[in-house]
Amino acid sequence: MPPPTPIEPKVTEQPSAEAKAAPVAFRFRCISCGDLSDAAVQNFRCSRCGDLLEIIHPSWVSGASAPAASDLKASWKQRRSSLSPVDLSGVWRFRELLPALENLHHVISLREGNTPLYALPRCSRLTGLPHLFAKHQGMNPTGSFKDTGMTVAASFARQAGFRWVACASTGNTSASMAAYAARGGLRSLVLVPEGKISWSKLSQSLDYGAVTCQLRTDFDGCLRLLQELVLRAPVYQLNSINPFRLEGQKTLAFELLEQLDWQPPDHIIVPGGNLGNSSAIGKALLEMHDLGLIVRLPKLSIIQAEGANALVRTMRETGGKHLISVQAETHATAIRIGNPASWKKAVRVLQATGGTCEQVSEIEIAQAKAEIGAEGIGCEPASAVTLAGLKKLLKRGFVKPEESVVLVLTGHLLKDPGFTMDFHRGDLFPVAGSDGEENGASAALQSLRRPPIVLDATLEAVIGALEQGEKSSPEN
Amino acid sequence: MPPPTPIEPKVTEQPSAEAKAAPVAFRFRCISCGDLSDAAVQNFRCSRCGDLLEIIHPSWVSGASAPAASDLKASWKQRRSSLSPVDLSGVWRFRELLPALENLHHVISLREGNTPLYALPRCSRLTGLPHLFAKHQGMNPTGSFKDTGMTVAASFARQAGFRWVACASTGNTSASMAAYAARGGLRSLVLVPEGKISWSKLSQSLDYGAVTCQLRTDFDGCLRLLQELVLRAPVYQLNSINPFRLEGQKTLAFELLEQLDWQPPDHIIVPGGNLGNSSAIGKALLEMHDLGLIVRLPKLSIIQAEGANALVRTMRETGGKHLISVQAETHATAIRIGNPASWKKAVRVLQATGGTCEQVSEIEIAQAKAEIGAEGIGCEPASAVTLAGLKKLLKRGFVKPEESVVLVLTGHLLKDPGFTMDFHRGDLFPVAGSDGEENGASAALQSLRRPPIVLDATLEAVIGALEQGEKSSPEN
Repeated sequence: MPPPTPIEPKVTEQPSAEAKAAPVAFRFRCISCGDLSDAAVQNFRCSRCGDLLEIIHPSWVSGASAPAASDLKASWKQRRSSLSPVDLSGVWRFRELLPALENLHHVISLREGNTPLYALPRCSRLTGLPHLFAKHQGMNPTGSFKDTGMTVAASFARQAGFRWVACASTGNTSASMAAYAARGGLRSLVLVPEGKISWSKLSQSLDYGAVTCQLRTDFDGCLRLLQELVLRAPVYQLNSINPFRLEGQKTLAFELLEQLDWQPPDHIIVPGGNLGNSSAIGKALLEMHDLGLIVRLPKLSIIQAEGANALVRTMRETGGKHLISVQAETHATAIRIGNPASWKKAVRVLQATGGTCEQVSEIEIAQAKAEIGAEGIGCEPASAVTLAGLKKLLKRGFVKPEESVVLVLTGHLLKDPGFTMDFHRGDLFPVAGSDGEENGASAALQSLRRPPIVLDATLEAVIGALEQGEKSSPEN
Repeated sequence: MPPPTPIEPKVTEQPSAEAKAAPVAFRFRCISCGDLSDAAVQNFRCSRCGDLLEIIHPSWVSGASAPAASDLKASWKQRRSSLSPVDLSGVWRFRELLPALENLHHVISLREGNTPLYALPRCSRLTGLPHLFAKHQGMNPTGSFKDTGMTVAASFARQAGFRWVACASTGNTSASMAAYAARGGLRSLVLVPEGKISWSKLSQSLDYGAVTCQLRTDFDGCLRLLQELVLRAPVYQLNSINPFRLEGQKTLAFELLEQLDWQPPDHIIVPGGNLGNSSAIGKALLEMHDLGLIVRLPKLSIIQAEGANALVRTMRETGGKHLISVQAETHATAIRIGNPASWKKAVRVLQATGGTCEQVSEIEIAQAKAEIGAEGIGCEPASAVTLAGLKKLLKRGFVKPEESVVLVLTGHLLKDPGFTMDFHRGDLFPVAGSDGEENGASAALQSLRRPPIVLDATLEAVIGALEQGEKSSPEN
């Protein structure tokens, strides 16, 4: 045996560049009354009018010290070949456009971001859109887009000296929060609606050591309770009301544009639940445009499930002026939210980018999910609203066949295996509807089902299954 | 609305460098009789003696055209900032050390590899090992290490013109194969043991459109049947008997060493099931050593579940000369294999690197899994045998406290949420055993459980849960 040679692997190295540069100042601004402040109270609401806060960088606004687009692109590219954990993060790699920590040693990272941009050849044929792509945020460490925001907000919680963090969740936020809390040596408290989140997501918060409370209410009830709690106990609030979360989620757009060599697509389509993600992506697009990183704005559109269509109704019935809450019900549990916290931010994004919103049925979601799966790309039901919605936007003429479209997939297939099992075994949507359109959807749906077959372990049985599979081939 | 400007995103670009260089010749060599051949029959067994084949690069062996280590390192680093899909793959980025396709357009990729190397500060304190890391292959696109091998083997299947691919699986292989087949426009046939794989894994092969047969037998029975099938039908065999799979899995080691700036750790510890992964990592270490990429060999050790300990018994009872098959039974379903196909390759790796093998109990696996989870890193039970085994290797003195250790985590937490739920709710290992050691394990185990709490949606109830959580804090 050779003598032991302890090494200090380079993964613990200092970040490659500018790590010790002076932090960029940031401030909180109320999205309603515009009040500016250097600190936020614990519920992250304006102390004057109670509305949500956003983070702004006054030095950019004044134009005094806005970073040069070419410098940013060069730094970000260079960091891709660095070995430092901060540079390896697909979030902190873009730190010039994030609120600055006092010290990068506060960063809690699981190597989030760096998610793939996939071409979708089958869905391209299906929709007649040659330039169709999926940005898959389900490839984040805990399986959802939440990680990109959580790394930023959890790092600020640690910097502020908190011992406990908490969130209300339909499952993905709690999984992400519990992981980042554990990673950063913090304790976490999870509030989820009893019986309404997938087992897979619940198993994550347990595994990462969170105190997990299943409350006898819905998501909106969990969120209300959390907002009271953080004013009464020394617990840091990690819902998407927390504007640091949205800052981290902006990086999806930075990374996407980098992957497209800074050529903006015509459309970006996002699922709409609590509306933090669309708000964040929209903010990023506007900032990139202001800073000259892109020369024109993609249209950002938001798709909701028919059973959780608060934004769609808000836009159609009030022109975006007043929130119309709904009683949310959909199999796409990640967007089963009736009272979306970030609705005002989302409305502004739709208006600023020229995007639209749309709603899709449960059958349309299931069909779209199976069509994405047939590309070899697994996602959870909420992600599939993007493809289902795209079909409607094409029909409406809002998206044109020659335009380029990026669908944002927000969660991994493994986040909700029960939906997939129920769909393929025929437990979901078992009977065709009575009207023409529903029958059509069901026929298309039936052709996508691949129920598992139980067989004796004989060559004859397996060859029989193979021959049957050949007959039911998508090309036949 | 601005006029539509169709773009061709750069993701479809040609690979950055050397893509059109002459392919490196490779040959098949029988691991027993040494017979060399340019082609393999469909069951990937030696046509003379029936044993397994491995892929070799004769030009390196002769020394005539071995690539220079410094050139390789520079190319691989440069590709990390490329936007080409082939370079973005954590497998094909290392293509100089893989069998060459006739044309890189055959590559089927889901952006596999590029997995994180995590420090494990809590487990370091627990074990007294300051230099302890986890290489998390569960962060691959379908959630397991299988993707790194599948991208290579599926690409060769497509190049060879096959329409169908097939595998026998405990779940992870089938998920991966179904995804890559779908991605590459191929059909796939999956043979899994009925009732013995997790729902999550089953849902993946359904979602990706595979013909999924649940056979009334165990994994070993599925594999036997598959080997007959591929001799009778035009179906490409994608089990790890297929040596292209192992070539792709080598890249774990290339990537790991690059992350460690080419400073080899003292130990790499891998779970042992069918033993393809340990064989592949070992082959990569030996090749890197031969090519001068590393100056000394890490010891590669293999950990099995007590209930599926064929390799452990083979080493202890025959010195690695004859396989002792077992009737496999363990909750770590990904390694529930009694008759490991690649046992001979694994024995050679143990001998060549000076590694060892060890077995761990079901309780030790559950405890190690919860300890890894408490780091904010989720893995499936089979992955956790590495930490459980490390503790035993430390006790045996085989690993020394000052040595550096990398644990290979092979699957994501979301691959088997049922295990996690059952563990935390107390359905697994509910009662402490009667002898002293088992009681000890159970006490440690109890302290790791975090059962979910069902509560009324009131502030008082939640504050109560928070206070209770504070008392049960790991630090108390």
